[in-house]
Amino acid sequence: MDKYDHALESLRFDKKKAHKLDKIATDATPGIKNKEKGREQLAHIVAELSDLQYRLYAEAKTALLIVFQAMDTGGKDGVVRKVFGPLNPQGVEVTSFKRPTPDELAHDYLWRVHRRIPARGMIGVFNRSHYEDILVPWAHKQISADEFGRRRHQINNFESHLIENGTSILKFFLHISKAEQKRRLEERLTNPDKNWKFETGDLAERGLWDRYQDTYQMVLEQCSTGHAPWFVIPADCKWYRDWATAKIVRRELCRIHPKLPKSRTDIDGLLVK
Amino acid sequence: MDKYDHALESLRFDKKKAHKLDKIATDATPGIKNKEKGREQLAHIVAELSDLQYRLYAEAKTALLIVFQAMDTGGKDGVVRKVFGPLNPQGVEVTSFKRPTPDELAHDYLWRVHRRIPARGMIGVFNRSHYEDILVPWAHKQISADEFGRRRHQINNFESHLIENGTSILKFFLHISKAEQKRRLEERLTNPDKNWKFETGDLAERGLWDRYQDTYQMVLEQCSTGHAPWFVIPADCKWYRDWATAKIVRRELCRIHPKLPKSRTDIDGLLVK
Repeated sequence: MDKYDHALESLRFDKKKAHKLDKIATDATPGIKNKEKGREQLAHIVAELSDLQYRLYAEAKTALLIVFQAMDTGGKDGVVRKVFGPLNPQGVEVTSFKRPTPDELAHDYLWRVHRRIPARGMIGVFNRSHYEDILVPWAHKQISADEFGRRRHQINNFESHLIENGTSILKFFLHISKAEQKRRLEERLTNPDKNWKFETGDLAERGLWDRYQDTYQMVLEQCSTGHAPWFVIPADCKWYRDWATAKIVRRELCRIHPKLPKSRTDIDGLLVK
Repeated sequence: MDKYDHALESLRFDKKKAHKLDKIATDATPGIKNKEKGREQLAHIVAELSDLQYRLYAEAKTALLIVFQAMDTGGKDGVVRKVFGPLNPQGVEVTSFKRPTPDELAHDYLWRVHRRIPARGMIGVFNRSHYEDILVPWAHKQISADEFGRRRHQINNFESHLIENGTSILKFFLHISKAEQKRRLEERLTNPDKNWKFETGDLAERGLWDRYQDTYQMVLEQCSTGHAPWFVIPADCKWYRDWATAKIVRRELCRIHPKLPKSRTDIDGLLVK
């Protein structure tokens, strides 16, 4: 384990370590000192991700599912663009889950999620996910504790099933402070280029900040499993958010260790005339 | 419980009753005496199913999933045609699961199944199902006991999730004798109208008859749950197979008790000019 791995490991949410969101600094940068170094390293890491993604695709044995959740303005769009944007789009599928359609609402909440699970060889990136279906109704007091418990089990069983059938799962909570969200929402209101990102609902959700933090705490405690861990990424610094996420994805791809397969046919002695 | 209900209830596979497939007669007709009565009653039952299906669709609160499994020639196509054929096709979706496509094989085996789960208000009929993914590889000794155990749990968890989210599930094993299969396969070989149904692989699978019966026994024992029961339908007599299946589906729809909802808008005082 190199010196960075300790830092990455410290980001993995572990209820045994009694991790509490309100004790985890949102502006920390464990594992690296400054923005210049972070941006410089990110370029190298992403180049390695590109190579690993190529091998993952060629081998077609394992799928990698990456889940992003965050409070509004947490930086989900940004991290997807910075870390996965440079990869070959043929091997990466990004799904931004929006408000469910009538057809989606007519099915169980995992139905639309399962459809978008990446095939073996692919990297699937979820911008929001099935976690919305437990976080939002609980924060809004629309489901009972029993229903919360059922969904937690359904989600854990679903993820276990995926893992047992060839999918690796990494889950990232982009952790920003309430003050940082204020700055970013104000930016959306004042910067004409960012106006389009502002929705009036954002302010109502911000009003539930504490309730959401408590809900995330519960969900992280109950759904961060050994095989499908949650990482809490300090995300006030965008460069750190990208750097840490890319490092953790690279580490997982190295663990999967995809290899270019041999030819599918016997090519000994074949001549291309 | 009327006199028929005892008969229907006796068809529900219950490992506590130590049900053994090789002790369940394939040519029995519990609950009804003869073919004429059976066919006559079927027409009435199917008319009732039609009405119940209409209410299920209008209410759009519950989905009904019906799974059919059987040895080759067991009558899956026949029962689908006779019991569900007369219903409004807008409310019934039949899925015949074939050999998986490359895209399907690149995902976990429940991926293609989840896609075809009926929406609330719909009846989904599976001609073969996710059970093929545990039955066939076990019968062919392609998976370990550990993997069998994992799949059994995955399937039970998947079905629990569906049930907890508004889907009712009935599973039917159409139970024929080895001698009856011989007659039906010979019919496929000799009757030009049925030739197209014969596949050479059928004979190889027939060679594994005992192994398949043992596998079905294991699967029925481990996956017939209180909420997603398996029914073993004596299916040597086609009229009985249809009658019993229709009765059980009707009973489940009556249990769901779908009601035509009120108008979605306030229609008091509205005039159509």
